[in-house]
Amino acid sequence: MDLDLIRRLSVPADTRVVLCVMDGLGGLPGPRSRTELDEAATRHLDRLAEVGTLGQTIPAGYGVTVGSGPGHTALFGLDPLRYEIGRGVLEATGIDFEIGPDDLAARGNLCTVDAAGAITDRRAGRVATEVTAEIAAELSQIALPGVEVFVRAVKEHRFVLVLRGPRLSAAITETDPQQEGVPPLPAGAVDAVEADAERTAELVNGFVAEARERLKDREVANHLLLRGWSQRPELPQLPELWKLRAAACTVYPMYRGLARLVGMKAIDGGDSLATQFEALRRHWDDFDFFFVHHKAPDGAGEDGDFVRKAQAIREFDDCLPQLLNLEPDVLVVTGDHSTPSVMAAHSWHPVPLLIHGRYVRPDGSHHFNELECARGGYGTFPATEVLPLAFAHAGRLAKYGA
Amino acid sequence: MDLDLIRRLSVPADTRVVLCVMDGLGGLPGPRSRTELDEAATRHLDRLAEVGTLGQTIPAGYGVTVGSGPGHTALFGLDPLRYEIGRGVLEATGIDFEIGPDDLAARGNLCTVDAAGAITDRRAGRVATEVTAEIAAELSQIALPGVEVFVRAVKEHRFVLVLRGPRLSAAITETDPQQEGVPPLPAGAVDAVEADAERTAELVNGFVAEARERLKDREVANHLLLRGWSQRPELPQLPELWKLRAAACTVYPMYRGLARLVGMKAIDGGDSLATQFEALRRHWDDFDFFFVHHKAPDGAGEDGDFVRKAQAIREFDDCLPQLLNLEPDVLVVTGDHSTPSVMAAHSWHPVPLLIHGRYVRPDGSHHFNELECARGGYGTFPATEVLPLAFAHAGRLAKYGA
Repeated sequence: MDLDLIRRLSVPADTRVVLCVMDGLGGLPGPRSRTELDEAATRHLDRLAEVGTLGQTIPAGYGVTVGSGPGHTALFGLDPLRYEIGRGVLEATGIDFEIGPDDLAARGNLCTVDAAGAITDRRAGRVATEVTAEIAAELSQIALPGVEVFVRAVKEHRFVLVLRGPRLSAAITETDPQQEGVPPLPAGAVDAVEADAERTAELVNGFVAEARERLKDREVANHLLLRGWSQRPELPQLPELWKLRAAACTVYPMYRGLARLVGMKAIDGGDSLATQFEALRRHWDDFDFFFVHHKAPDGAGEDGDFVRKAQAIREFDDCLPQLLNLEPDVLVVTGDHSTPSVMAAHSWHPVPLLIHGRYVRPDGSHHFNELECARGGYGTFPATEVLPLAFAHAGRLAKYGA
Repeated sequence: MDLDLIRRLSVPADTRVVLCVMDGLGGLPGPRSRTELDEAATRHLDRLAEVGTLGQTIPAGYGVTVGSGPGHTALFGLDPLRYEIGRGVLEATGIDFEIGPDDLAARGNLCTVDAAGAITDRRAGRVATEVTAEIAAELSQIALPGVEVFVRAVKEHRFVLVLRGPRLSAAITETDPQQEGVPPLPAGAVDAVEADAERTAELVNGFVAEARERLKDREVANHLLLRGWSQRPELPQLPELWKLRAAACTVYPMYRGLARLVGMKAIDGGDSLATQFEALRRHWDDFDFFFVHHKAPDGAGEDGDFVRKAQAIREFDDCLPQLLNLEPDVLVVTGDHSTPSVMAAHSWHPVPLLIHGRYVRPDGSHHFNELECARGGYGTFPATEVLPLAFAHAGRLAKYGA
């Protein structure tokens, strides 16, 4: 839905809308020709399917496999092809590092180079996270003229570098040559005439030189590679667009961070669906819209673990009564993309969707699964339209035209 | 469909296409979990569903509830978000007042003000239509420099004001403060540097001052409020786009007026479906495309009257053989939006659609209802694509590319 139209038609209402995202929800048939959703035998979701409306969504385009960033951007109602979140920012978001307007972020790898400076291992033997944390603390002490430096460990050899200061530019080249046997590349301005980029590249090269100096006596993890230069995207804010108070309740920081980028407030989700739904109960009067994220189906899918993915979906279904007790006016259950276990990867397949609430039009469905969603009452439609539909059902969209 | 593509591919043919719009057709389950369409037990439409193709349309966007204006604009193949018809023009259209290219129209309310000039009743006690007609005749005599003045009663306290003259501007503010206890607002230019708007606002304020003078001795309806300033939109014309002769056959003037705005000729529909279909017979050789409008389902739906809405649909079905006797090459039956009786209002739900004619692909349907339309052969698609589909089936769209 066009954002100006949203601004024009959205109206406040005393209704609660909950968007539950099972990460990587959609699947493909595995053993006995059943998908993970079939196998999960979700009796509560099936009951909602009987009284609600099903459909399936296309995250970014037919055939397009999305990552978590664009998958969620679309579910938040924003065109994921227009509003792109850079790799560095996404990585920072994933460790709960709040990116500010003056920040430039990069995804970093510790790597190992030989005496001649050529990369021998782009991942530094997947060095332990604790070692990376120790190195990150050391590198955070590097002083650069006019900018603050933050280095934070992510996992194993991965870290985030954030430079904070005025007029930094993301239009600089990556230092990661994406191959071994050659030295890291110097950073440079993508466009030679851009002064801010020139200066930023110089700062980055200064940082890298100093880091190399501090790491040079290590046998592994004695150098680093930087890529995915990015700054905080200027995303439209849900509270302004929709005239409501929006909360994100997640276990994993990255999803909380993505939600923050569109103006949601993070509420503490604890470490499980039970604690997430309990948090909703505590904050039920404080917000109009709740985004709940369930990570486990995607992890199992990416591991190619069919049974564990079905269990992760079942876990959601088992907890669902706790959410239903809150009697949300509108409940949407869907995924950010498909992650079929048989592919052990994200995929482009449409994503199952269920919408339940007042004024839903039943569509003769009996089960919440890929097959019935494909035949559901809302058909196949862009994931960006999920929120408009949900808010329409919640009485939060006025009529267009007389 | 892109308008330039229509111009490029449309070809004349000796075929008759009929678009029947049951206003507010789509519904929601009421008693016994059946929708109004289920309840209507439409045996003729069901037979067409068996041999034709079903689908469901989205008038302006997922979750967007449309008024009659945008609902019909979409069915006429034009993007309702791009081609917007202002409130004043729509209201004039609704009383068969033909808006010309030099006209500026406003929707008016008679209101009541106290001695200090503050509004005490924005609707003047919903004064009788006859009184408004009498006042309208009086106000039509007001003389303004360089423009003609038309005032026409609509219903109760509502009227239409049309100013006709050169260089009038719709970019002026409304005089209706949308609240009581304050005086009406003066009209002003939306943008202070626009000379035409300044001049138009002055004319309007002159009209209002003179009207107030003429009404001041009345106890109620002693003042007026003006809003929805608008001019005739420049809409693409169906005869030019599609190379055909198009006729509108309606009972209610507003729908005739909407059809005229896209270049259709109005033919006298009488006062019922029987007279409408009879008018089609009389004019069968004069036109290639007929738009037939059936208002009753919407009125009943807005009144929350489930049984009456089902009866209104059944009435259409009962009359259908009269239309089928004419053997149209292509017959489309759909709605401009949904108006579920249980909501007693227009809604965002997809609208059932049936297309019958030569070369339709049957989709295994047996009933024309919301459920089977959702699973129909054309799936869920934008209402703007209804006409291209209809004309394709009528041999009126040439091949694109070799």
